[in-house]
Amino acid sequence: MKIIIVGASGTIGKKVTEALRGENEIITAGSKSGDIQVDISSTESIEAFYKQTGNFDALISVTGNAYFGPLKTMTIKDFDIGLQSKVRGQVNLVLIGQHYINAKGSFTLTSGILSDDPILLGVNPAAVNGAINAFTKSAAIELENGVRINAISAGVVEDAPGYFSYFPGHIPVTMDRVTNAYYKSVFGALTGQVIQVW
Amino acid sequence: MKIIIVGASGTIGKKVTEALRGENEIITAGSKSGDIQVDISSTESIEAFYKQTGNFDALISVTGNAYFGPLKTMTIKDFDIGLQSKVRGQVNLVLIGQHYINAKGSFTLTSGILSDDPILLGVNPAAVNGAINAFTKSAAIELENGVRINAISAGVVEDAPGYFSYFPGHIPVTMDRVTNAYYKSVFGALTGQVIQVW
Repeated sequence: MKIIIVGASGTIGKKVTEALRGENEIITAGSKSGDIQVDISSTESIEAFYKQTGNFDALISVTGNAYFGPLKTMTIKDFDIGLQSKVRGQVNLVLIGQHYINAKGSFTLTSGILSDDPILLGVNPAAVNGAINAFTKSAAIELENGVRINAISAGVVEDAPGYFSYFPGHIPVTMDRVTNAYYKSVFGALTGQVIQVW
Repeated sequence: MKIIIVGASGTIGKKVTEALRGENEIITAGSKSGDIQVDISSTESIEAFYKQTGNFDALISVTGNAYFGPLKTMTIKDFDIGLQSKVRGQVNLVLIGQHYINAKGSFTLTSGILSDDPILLGVNPAAVNGAINAFTKSAAIELENGVRINAISAGVVEDAPGYFSYFPGHIPVTMDRVTNAYYKSVFGALTGQVIQVW
Protein backbone atom coordinates (compact mmCIF):
# COMPACT_ATOMS: atom_id res chain seq x y z
CA MET A 1 0.00 0.00 0.00
CA LYS A 2 1.27 3.48 -0.89
CA ILE A 3 0.86 5.67 2.18
CA ILE A 4 1.60 9.39 2.52
CA ILE A 5 2.25 10.67 6.04
CA VAL A 6 2.08 14.46 6.41
CA GLY A 7 3.69 15.54 9.66
CA ALA A 8 5.87 12.44 9.80
CA SER A 9 8.53 14.07 11.96
CA GLY A 10 6.19 15.07 14.80
CA THR A 11 5.71 13.34 18.14
CA ILE A 12 2.88 11.16 16.83
CA GLY A 13 4.01 11.18 13.20
CA LYS A 14 7.34 9.52 14.00
CA LYS A 15 5.68 6.62 15.79
CA VAL A 16 3.00 6.18 13.12
CA THR A 17 5.69 6.16 10.43
CA GLU A 18 7.70 3.51 12.30
CA ALA A 19 4.59 1.37 12.75
CA LEU A 20 3.65 1.44 9.07
CA ARG A 21 7.08 1.02 7.52
CA GLY A 22 8.01 -2.45 6.31
CA GLU A 23 5.43 -3.86 3.98
CA ASN A 24 4.20 -0.47 2.77
CA GLU A 25 5.57 2.19 0.48
CA ILE A 26 5.79 5.21 2.75
CA ILE A 27 6.17 8.80 1.58
CA THR A 28 6.95 11.10 4.50
CA ALA A 29 6.13 14.78 4.24
CA GLY A 30 6.49 17.87 6.36
CA SER A 31 6.90 21.60 6.11
CA LYS A 32 10.67 21.31 6.43
CA SER A 33 11.48 17.61 6.59
CA GLY A 34 10.50 14.30 5.05
CA ASP A 35 10.78 12.87 1.55
CA ILE A 36 8.76 15.75 0.12
CA GLN A 37 8.05 19.18 1.60
CA VAL A 38 4.56 20.65 1.61
CA ASP A 39 3.13 23.85 3.04
CA ILE A 40 -0.41 22.85 3.95
CA SER A 41 -1.48 26.50 4.22
CA SER A 42 -0.96 26.85 0.47
CA THR A 43 -3.25 25.36 -2.19
CA GLU A 44 -0.45 25.67 -4.75
CA SER A 45 1.96 23.79 -2.51
CA ILE A 46 -0.55 20.98 -1.87
CA GLU A 47 -1.29 20.67 -5.60
CA ALA A 48 2.41 20.51 -6.41
CA PHE A 49 2.84 17.97 -3.63
CA TYR A 50 0.24 15.54 -4.96
CA LYS A 51 1.63 15.90 -8.48
CA GLN A 52 4.92 14.71 -7.03
CA THR A 53 3.51 11.86 -4.94
CA GLY A 54 1.19 10.67 -7.70
CA ASN A 55 -1.79 8.48 -6.92
CA PHE A 56 -1.81 6.89 -3.49
CA ASP A 57 -3.81 4.55 -1.25
CA ALA A 58 -3.79 6.32 2.10
CA LEU A 59 -3.08 9.78 3.37
CA ILE A 60 -2.38 10.24 7.06
CA SER A 61 -2.32 13.81 8.33
CA VAL A 62 -0.71 14.28 11.74
CA THR A 63 -0.09 17.94 11.28
CA GLY A 64 -1.51 21.37 12.05
CA ASN A 65 -1.00 23.96 14.76
CA ALA A 66 -3.41 25.71 17.07
CA TYR A 67 -3.16 28.55 19.59
CA PHE A 68 -2.90 27.81 23.29
CA GLY A 69 -3.78 30.78 25.45
CA PRO A 70 -6.44 32.35 27.65
CA LEU A 71 -9.86 33.26 26.25
CA LYS A 72 -9.76 36.52 28.18
CA THR A 73 -7.06 38.07 26.01
CA MET A 74 -7.65 36.07 22.84
CA THR A 75 -8.07 37.95 19.57
CA ILE A 76 -9.46 36.62 16.33
CA LYS A 77 -5.89 36.61 15.00
CA ASP A 78 -4.91 34.15 17.71
CA PHE A 79 -7.97 32.06 16.90
CA ASP A 80 -7.07 32.10 13.21
CA ILE A 81 -3.87 30.16 13.90
CA GLY A 82 -5.78 26.91 14.36
CA LEU A 83 -8.33 27.65 11.64
CA GLN A 84 -5.63 28.34 9.08
CA SER A 85 -3.37 25.45 9.94
CA LYS A 86 -5.11 22.50 11.56
CA VAL A 87 -8.53 23.05 9.95
CA ARG A 88 -7.89 24.56 6.50
CA GLY A 89 -4.63 22.70 6.06
CA GLN A 90 -6.07 19.28 6.77
CA VAL A 91 -9.32 19.95 4.91
CA ASN A 92 -7.40 21.12 1.84
CA LEU A 93 -5.29 17.94 1.91
CA VAL A 94 -8.60 16.09 1.46
CA LEU A 95 -10.26 18.49 -1.01
CA ILE A 96 -7.30 18.26 -3.38
CA GLY A 97 -6.26 14.74 -2.42
CA GLN A 98 -9.66 13.28 -3.35
CA HIS A 99 -8.62 13.75 -7.00
CA TYR A 100 -5.44 11.69 -6.52
CA ILE A 101 -6.51 8.93 -4.14
CA ASN A 102 -7.02 5.38 -5.45
CA ALA A 103 -10.39 3.60 -5.18
CA LYS A 104 -10.87 2.13 -1.71
CA GLY A 105 -8.20 4.49 -0.36
CA SER A 106 -8.45 6.34 2.93
CA PHE A 107 -7.84 9.69 4.54
CA THR A 108 -6.94 9.80 8.24
CA LEU A 109 -6.96 13.21 9.90
CA THR A 110 -5.97 14.30 13.39
CA SER A 111 -8.22 16.09 15.85
CA GLY A 112 -7.86 15.64 19.63
CA ILE A 113 -9.58 15.32 22.97
CA LEU A 114 -10.08 19.04 23.69
CA SER A 115 -13.34 19.41 21.76
CA ASP A 116 -14.91 16.83 24.09
CA ASP A 117 -12.98 17.34 27.31
CA PRO A 118 -11.77 20.95 27.38
CA ILE A 119 -8.90 22.39 29.42
CA LEU A 120 -8.02 25.97 30.33
CA LEU A 121 -6.20 27.75 27.48
CA GLY A 122 -7.52 25.22 25.00
CA VAL A 123 -10.37 27.10 23.29
CA ASN A 124 -8.69 27.29 19.90
CA PRO A 125 -7.66 23.62 19.62
CA ALA A 126 -11.09 22.63 20.97
CA ALA A 127 -12.90 24.50 18.18
CA VAL A 128 -10.44 23.19 15.61
CA ASN A 129 -10.93 19.59 16.70
CA GLY A 130 -14.70 20.01 16.59
CA ALA A 131 -14.46 21.23 13.01
CA ILE A 132 -12.23 18.31 11.94
CA ASN A 133 -14.47 15.72 13.61
CA ALA A 134 -17.62 17.06 11.95
CA PHE A 135 -15.89 17.50 8.59
CA THR A 136 -14.85 13.85 8.76
CA LYS A 137 -18.33 12.60 9.58
CA SER A 138 -19.88 14.65 6.77
CA ALA A 139 -17.21 14.12 4.08
CA ALA A 140 -17.53 10.34 4.55
CA ILE A 141 -21.01 10.32 3.02
CA GLU A 142 -19.82 12.10 -0.13
CA LEU A 143 -16.47 10.48 -0.92
CA GLU A 144 -16.75 8.19 -3.96
CA ASN A 145 -15.21 4.90 -5.17
CA GLY A 146 -15.12 3.41 -1.71
CA VAL A 147 -12.74 6.07 -0.38
CA ARG A 148 -12.93 6.34 3.40
CA ILE A 149 -12.14 9.07 5.93
CA ASN A 150 -11.65 9.00 9.71
CA ALA A 151 -10.24 11.29 12.37
CA ILE A 152 -8.05 10.21 15.28
CA SER A 153 -8.80 12.07 18.49
CA ALA A 154 -6.15 11.32 21.10
CA GLY A 155 -5.69 12.57 24.63
CA VAL A 156 -2.39 14.01 25.77
CA VAL A 157 0.25 11.49 24.70
CA GLU A 158 2.89 9.94 26.92
CA ASP A 159 5.68 11.24 24.68
CA ALA A 160 4.68 14.88 25.32
CA PRO A 161 5.36 15.35 29.04
CA GLY A 162 5.73 19.10 28.54
CA TYR A 163 1.94 19.25 28.16
CA PHE A 164 0.99 17.15 31.21
CA SER A 165 0.59 20.08 33.61
CA TYR A 166 -1.98 21.68 31.28
CA PHE A 167 -4.09 18.50 31.42
CA PRO A 168 -4.76 18.01 35.14
CA GLY A 169 -6.32 14.64 35.83
CA HIS A 170 -5.87 13.42 32.28
CA ILE A 171 -4.19 10.06 31.98
CA PRO A 172 -1.57 10.27 29.21
CA VAL A 173 -2.24 7.73 26.49
CA THR A 174 0.45 5.33 25.35
CA MET A 175 1.98 5.85 21.93
CA ASP A 176 1.07 2.26 21.08
CA ARG A 177 -2.62 2.97 21.49
CA VAL A 178 -2.32 6.08 19.35
CA THR A 179 -0.41 4.44 16.52
CA ASN A 180 -2.86 1.52 16.56
CA ALA A 181 -5.72 3.96 15.98
CA TYR A 182 -4.04 5.27 12.82
CA TYR A 183 -3.34 1.67 11.77
CA LYS A 184 -6.99 0.77 12.32
CA SER A 185 -8.17 3.70 10.21
CA VAL A 186 -5.87 2.79 7.30
CA PHE A 187 -6.19 -1.01 7.32
CA GLY A 188 -9.69 -1.38 8.75
CA ALA A 189 -12.96 -0.61 7.03
CA LEU A 190 -14.36 2.19 9.19
CA THR A 191 -15.43 5.45 7.63
CA GLY A 192 -16.84 8.71 8.99
CA GLN A 193 -15.64 7.82 12.46
CA VAL A 194 -13.85 9.78 15.14
CA ILE A 195 -11.57 7.17 16.67
CA GLN A 196 -11.12 8.24 20.27
CA VAL A 197 -7.92 7.32 22.10
CA TRP A 198 -8.22 8.32 25.72
CA MET B 1 -32.63 42.49 30.68
CA LYS B 2 -30.70 44.14 27.84
CA ILE B 3 -30.45 41.66 25.00
CA ILE B 4 -28.63 42.04 21.69
CA ILE B 5 -29.84 39.87 18.82
CA VAL B 6 -27.44 39.67 15.88
CA GLY B 7 -29.20 38.31 12.81
CA ALA B 8 -32.59 39.47 14.06
CA SER B 9 -34.13 39.65 10.59
CA GLY B 10 -33.39 36.03 9.65
CA THR B 11 -35.84 33.11 9.68
CA ILE B 12 -34.97 32.15 13.25
CA GLY B 13 -33.91 35.63 14.36
CA LYS B 14 -37.34 37.11 13.66
CA LYS B 15 -39.10 34.57 15.84
CA VAL B 16 -36.55 34.82 18.64
CA THR B 17 -36.89 38.60 18.60
CA GLU B 18 -40.70 38.38 18.81
CA ALA B 19 -40.46 35.90 21.68
CA LEU B 20 -38.13 38.08 23.74
CA ARG B 21 -39.71 41.47 23.15
CA GLY B 22 -41.93 42.83 25.88
CA GLU B 23 -40.23 42.81 29.23
CA ASN B 24 -36.74 43.10 27.81
CA GLU B 25 -34.72 45.85 26.20
CA ILE B 26 -33.95 44.41 22.77
CA ILE B 27 -31.28 45.72 20.41
CA THR B 28 -31.62 44.14 16.97
CA ALA B 29 -28.60 43.97 14.70
CA GLY B 30 -27.79 42.73 11.25
CA SER B 31 -25.47 43.35 8.33
CA LYS B 32 -28.05 45.57 6.63
CA SER B 33 -31.02 45.82 8.97
CA GLY B 34 -31.88 46.16 12.64
CA ASP B 35 -31.34 48.93 15.16
CA ILE B 36 -27.59 48.84 14.59
CA GLN B 37 -25.62 47.41 11.67
CA VAL B 38 -22.60 45.20 12.20
CA ASP B 39 -20.34 43.35 9.79
CA ILE B 40 -19.33 40.28 11.81
CA SER B 41 -16.43 39.55 9.44
CA SER B 42 -14.74 42.75 10.62
CA THR B 43 -13.11 43.20 14.03
CA GLU B 44 -13.36 46.97 13.64
CA SER B 45 -17.08 46.77 12.91
CA ILE B 46 -17.72 44.52 15.93
CA GLU B 47 -15.72 46.83 18.20
CA ALA B 48 -17.64 49.87 16.96
CA PHE B 49 -20.87 47.92 17.42
CA TYR B 50 -20.27 47.13 21.09
CA LYS B 51 -19.20 50.70 21.73
CA GLN B 52 -22.61 51.69 20.43
CA THR B 53 -24.62 49.07 22.32
CA GLY B 54 -22.72 49.58 25.56
CA ASN B 55 -22.75 46.94 28.26
CA PHE B 56 -25.40 44.25 27.89
CA ASP B 57 -26.80 41.17 29.60
CA ALA B 58 -27.24 38.74 26.74
CA LEU B 59 -26.00 38.39 23.20
CA ILE B 60 -27.86 36.07 20.86
CA SER B 61 -26.16 35.32 17.56
CA VAL B 62 -28.41 33.81 14.90
CA THR B 63 -26.18 34.73 12.03
CA GLY B 64 -23.47 33.37 9.79
CA ASN B 65 -23.34 31.79 6.34
CA ALA B 66 -21.86 28.56 5.10
CA TYR B 67 -21.34 26.96 1.70
CA PHE B 68 -23.71 24.29 0.45
CA GLY B 69 -22.25 22.23 -2.36
CA PRO B 70 -20.70 18.90 -3.31
CA LEU B 71 -17.44 17.77 -1.75
CA LYS B 72 -16.27 16.53 -5.14
CA THR B 73 -15.83 20.00 -6.60
CA MET B 74 -15.30 21.93 -3.35
CA THR B 75 -12.27 24.20 -3.09
CA ILE B 76 -10.80 25.69 0.04
CA LYS B 77 -12.29 29.03 -1.04
CA ASP B 78 -15.76 27.50 -0.88
CA PHE B 79 -14.94 26.01 2.52
CA ASP B 80 -13.70 29.41 3.72
CA ILE B 81 -17.19 30.87 3.39
CA GLY B 82 -18.40 29.11 6.53
CA LEU B 83 -15.12 29.55 8.40
CA GLN B 84 -15.06 33.28 7.78
CA SER B 85 -18.70 33.96 8.51
CA LYS B 86 -20.36 31.47 10.83
CA VAL B 87 -17.20 30.47 12.75
CA ARG B 88 -14.97 33.57 12.87
CA GLY B 89 -17.91 35.95 12.95
CA GLN B 90 -19.64 34.31 15.89
CA VAL B 91 -16.39 33.64 17.77
CA ASN B 92 -15.32 37.25 17.37
CA LEU B 93 -18.68 38.42 18.75
CA VAL B 94 -17.71 36.52 21.91
CA LEU B 95 -13.99 37.42 22.00
CA ILE B 96 -14.78 41.13 21.86
CA GLY B 97 -18.15 40.92 23.59
CA GLN B 98 -16.64 39.35 26.72
CA HIS B 99 -15.24 42.79 27.52
CA TYR B 100 -18.70 44.43 27.36
CA ILE B 101 -20.97 41.79 28.88
CA ASN B 102 -22.37 42.28 32.38
CA ALA B 103 -21.67 39.81 35.20
CA LYS B 104 -23.97 36.77 34.96
CA GLY B 105 -24.65 37.62 31.32
CA SER B 106 -24.85 35.07 28.54
CA PHE B 107 -23.79 34.39 24.98
CA THR B 108 -26.00 32.18 22.81
CA LEU B 109 -24.53 31.08 19.49
CA THR B 110 -26.07 29.13 16.62
CA SER B 111 -24.70 25.89 15.20
CA GLY B 112 -26.98 23.25 13.67
CA ILE B 113 -27.77 19.59 13.18
CA LEU B 114 -25.38 18.90 10.29
CA SER B 115 -22.30 18.26 12.41
CA ASP B 116 -24.14 15.35 14.03
CA ASP B 117 -26.48 14.17 11.30
CA PRO B 118 -24.88 15.09 7.97
CA ILE B 119 -26.59 15.48 4.59
CA LEU B 120 -25.21 15.53 1.06
CA LEU B 121 -23.78 18.97 0.13
CA GLY B 122 -23.47 19.86 3.81
CA VAL B 123 -19.75 19.39 4.50
CA ASN B 124 -19.03 23.06 5.11
CA PRO B 125 -21.90 23.77 7.54
CA ALA B 126 -21.15 20.48 9.27
CA ALA B 127 -17.55 21.49 9.99
CA VAL B 128 -18.64 24.97 10.98
CA ASN B 129 -21.22 23.66 13.44
CA GLY B 130 -18.67 21.29 14.95
CA ALA B 131 -16.33 24.22 15.55
CA ILE B 132 -19.05 26.34 17.18
CA ASN B 133 -20.20 23.49 19.43
CA ALA B 134 -16.68 22.77 20.66
CA PHE B 135 -15.83 26.45 21.05
CA THR B 136 -18.90 26.83 23.23
CA LYS B 137 -18.04 23.88 25.44
CA SER B 138 -14.47 25.08 25.90
CA ALA B 139 -15.13 28.83 26.28
CA ALA B 140 -17.63 28.10 29.06
CA ILE B 141 -14.84 26.98 31.41
CA GLU B 142 -12.91 30.23 30.94
CA LEU B 143 -15.59 32.94 30.96
CA GLU B 144 -15.49 34.94 34.20
CA ASN B 145 -17.97 36.72 36.50
CA GLY B 146 -20.63 34.08 36.00
CA VAL B 147 -20.91 34.74 32.27
CA ARG B 148 -22.41 31.76 30.44
CA ILE B 149 -22.30 30.50 26.85
CA ASN B 150 -24.42 27.96 24.97
CA ALA B 151 -25.03 26.98 21.37
CA ILE B 152 -28.39 26.17 19.83
CA SER B 153 -28.25 23.34 17.33
CA ALA B 154 -31.53 23.06 15.46
CA GLY B 155 -32.62 20.75 12.69
CA VAL B 156 -34.20 22.10 9.52
CA VAL B 157 -36.91 24.49 10.67
CA GLU B 158 -40.55 24.49 9.58
CA ASP B 159 -40.28 28.06 8.30
CA ALA B 160 -37.61 27.11 5.75
CA PRO B 161 -39.46 24.75 3.37
CA GLY B 162 -36.98 25.53 0.60
CA TYR B 163 -34.47 23.36 2.45
CA PHE B 164 -36.70 20.34 3.11
CA SER B 165 -35.69 18.41 -0.02
CA TYR B 166 -32.03 18.58 1.05
CA PHE B 167 -32.92 16.95 4.38
CA PRO B 168 -34.59 13.66 3.37
CA GLY B 169 -36.19 11.94 6.32
CA HIS B 170 -35.57 14.87 8.66
CA ILE B 171 -38.63 16.05 10.55
CA PRO B 172 -38.76 19.87 10.41
CA VAL B 173 -38.74 21.36 13.88
CA THR B 174 -41.35 23.86 14.95
CA MET B 175 -40.30 27.48 15.39
CA ASP B 176 -41.71 27.35 18.91
CA ARG B 177 -39.25 24.66 19.94
CA VAL B 178 -36.38 26.63 18.40
CA THR B 179 -37.26 29.94 20.03
CA ASN B 180 -37.74 28.16 23.36
CA ALA B 181 -34.17 26.85 23.14
CA TYR B 182 -32.83 30.40 22.79
CA TYR B 183 -35.08 31.48 25.65
CA LYS B 184 -33.78 28.64 27.81
CA SER B 185 -30.18 29.61 27.11
CA VAL B 186 -30.76 33.28 28.03
CA PHE B 187 -33.05 32.88 31.04
CA GLY B 188 -31.89 29.50 32.32
CA ALA B 189 -28.64 28.69 34.06
CA LEU B 190 -27.00 26.28 31.62
CA THR B 191 -23.50 26.90 30.38
CA GLY B 192 -21.19 25.11 27.97
CA GLN B 193 -24.12 23.22 26.50
CA VAL B 194 -25.15 22.46 22.95
CA ILE B 195 -28.94 22.66 23.17
CA GLN B 196 -30.21 20.30 20.50
CA VAL B 197 -33.56 20.96 18.86
CA TRP B 198 -34.43 18.07 16.59
